[in-house]
Amino acid sequence: MPTTIAILAPGAMGSAVARRLSENGARVLTSLKGRSEATLKRAADAGMIGAEDDAIADADIILSIVPPGEAEALAERLAALIVKRHKKPVVVDCNAVNVDTVKRIEEIIGSAQAPFVDGGIIGFPPQPGGKSPAFYMSGEHARNLALLKDLGLDIRIVEGPVGAASALKMSYAGIVKGLAGIGSAMVIAATKAGAADALRDELALSQPAILARLEVALPDMIPKAYRWVAEMHEISGFLGPDHPASQIYEGFARWFEHLAADAKGEAVDASLLKAFATGAAKKA
Amino acid sequence: MPTTIAILAPGAMGSAVARRLSENGARVLTSLKGRSEATLKRAADAGMIGAEDDAIADADIILSIVPPGEAEALAERLAALIVKRHKKPVVVDCNAVNVDTVKRIEEIIGSAQAPFVDGGIIGFPPQPGGKSPAFYMSGEHARNLALLKDLGLDIRIVEGPVGAASALKMSYAGIVKGLAGIGSAMVIAATKAGAADALRDELALSQPAILARLEVALPDMIPKAYRWVAEMHEISGFLGPDHPASQIYEGFARWFEHLAADAKGEAVDASLLKAFATGAAKKA
Repeated sequence: MPTTIAILAPGAMGSAVARRLSENGARVLTSLKGRSEATLKRAADAGMIGAEDDAIADADIILSIVPPGEAEALAERLAALIVKRHKKPVVVDCNAVNVDTVKRIEEIIGSAQAPFVDGGIIGFPPQPGGKSPAFYMSGEHARNLALLKDLGLDIRIVEGPVGAASALKMSYAGIVKGLAGIGSAMVIAATKAGAADALRDELALSQPAILARLEVALPDMIPKAYRWVAEMHEISGFLGPDHPASQIYEGFARWFEHLAADAKGEAVDASLLKAFATGAAKKA
Repeated sequence: MPTTIAILAPGAMGSAVARRLSENGARVLTSLKGRSEATLKRAADAGMIGAEDDAIADADIILSIVPPGEAEALAERLAALIVKRHKKPVVVDCNAVNVDTVKRIEEIIGSAQAPFVDGGIIGFPPQPGGKSPAFYMSGEHARNLALLKDLGLDIRIVEGPVGAASALKMSYAGIVKGLAGIGSAMVIAATKAGAADALRDELALSQPAILARLEVALPDMIPKAYRWVAEMHEISGFLGPDHPASQIYEGFARWFEHLAADAKGEAVDASLLKAFATGAAKKA
C-alpha cells in the first residue's frame, strides 16, 4: 500500500507539494467539494485524487496548507472527521500562523486524539525537477514524518515543542518580508522626492547586499502583497498585543494592503518599485 | 585667511568633522556657552575654537549637526544672528530631518537672507586617518561647498532642490536602521520561543547576506537605539501622517525606545542580540 497523504487545500503551494509527493509514489487525496473549475484542473494536474471526508480522515498524514486566517477553521473540520475514526492520521499544520494559534490548533486536533505536528514552510512551492522548500517540523510527533523525506520533501526537524517551527517561520518571514516592506516604502518615497538615483548609488556603495536583495524582493513581492497582510497580523500576534514591536507589524499589514490595492488598480507604486529594481530609475 | 567654518554643536559627529576640517587647515569655531567639561575637552581635542555668536555668524560656512529634534530651534537661533550681518555665511543643515522640516529650516534661514544647503550625513564620524562619511548636499547653493572636499570631507551633490538630500538620508536610514529594527525584534522573539538556532541556520542557508548584516548591525545598534527614536519619528513624518507606511516607523520609534531602556537597565534583550550576533546562541 502506498502512503496516503491528504492535502487541504489544493492551492498553489498545496498542489505543488501534492505533485512532488505523487511523483514519488504517494497517493494524494484532497477535498474538491464546491471548488472552481481551475482548482479541479490544478488538482488533477498535480495527481491529486478528489476524496470524501471519510477517506481524508483515513489518510496516514494530513497536511493543512491554507491561508493563515483559515487554519483554525480547517482544524475544527478535521477534528470533527477524525474523532469518529479508530485509526488516527498525523495532522500537520504547515501554515504561517503564530505560536498561540498553533497551540490552539494542537488542542483542537488533540481533542480528536490524533497526533499533531507544528510545521512551517520556508521557500517557494516545489517545481517539477526542482528543489523542495524547507518543511520545518516541531513537536513530539515530528520524527514520525521522516517518510515525507523519501517522498521528496525537504523535512527539517526543529528541536522543541509545538510552536517552535511556527516561531521560526514567523521570525524568518518577519525579517525577510519585513525587509521587502521597509524597502518598498522607502524606495517609493525616495522616488517621489527625486532621490531614487542617489539612494540606489549609496546602497550600491555601502550596502550592496541589501540592494541586491531589494532588486529581487521588490518585484517578487508585488503579486504576493495581498497574502502577506494576514501573515503580518500573525507576526504581530506572535510578538503579542502589548509587545513594543507589534505596531511595526500592524504597520506592515496596512502597507501591504495598500500595495495589494495599488497592484490591482493603477499600479503606480508597483511601477516605481519595478523601475528601481531594474535600475531604470537611473535613466528616467 | 583660512576658511572659517562654524560647527554646532560639538557632539560626537560635530567634533569628529571639526577635527577633520582643522587638520586640513580650516579654522573651526563652535559655541561652548554652558557646555559640560567633557564637551569643552572634546571640542579642544578636535581643534575647535570657542567663539561668541557674532564670530560664528561671520564664518564662511555654518554646519548644523545636532539631534533631529533640535535642528529647527538651532536654525531660529542662527537666523537671528545672521540677519544683522552684512556678509552672510552658507548655512548647511546636516541633520536627519525630514523633507518638510528641512523646508521649514530653509525658510527660517532664508528670512535672514543667507544661502541654505540641505545636507545629509551617511556613515560613521570620520576617524583620524580614516575615511569621511558621505555628506550629501542638495539645493542651488550645494555647489558652493566644493571647498569642503579640499578640507577632507566626502561631499556628494544630490541633483535636486532642498529636500533631496534629506529624502536620501531618510530613505537610506529607513532601510538600514529599519532592518536592524525588524532583525532585533524577530531575533529576540525567536530566541524566547526557542527557535534562534533554527532561524540562524535558515538565514545562513537562504539569506546569508541578511545574516551577515544582522551580525554587524544588531550589536552596533544597541548603544545608538536612544538616538534612533527621534530619527524614526522623522522618517514617519517624511512619509506623512496619513501615509499607509508611517505606522511602521512609529512602531520602530517605540521599539528603539524599548531597546534603549533595556540597554540602560537589565540589558536582557541586548544580551540576546549579542548572543545571536556572535553565534553563541548555537551553543547555549
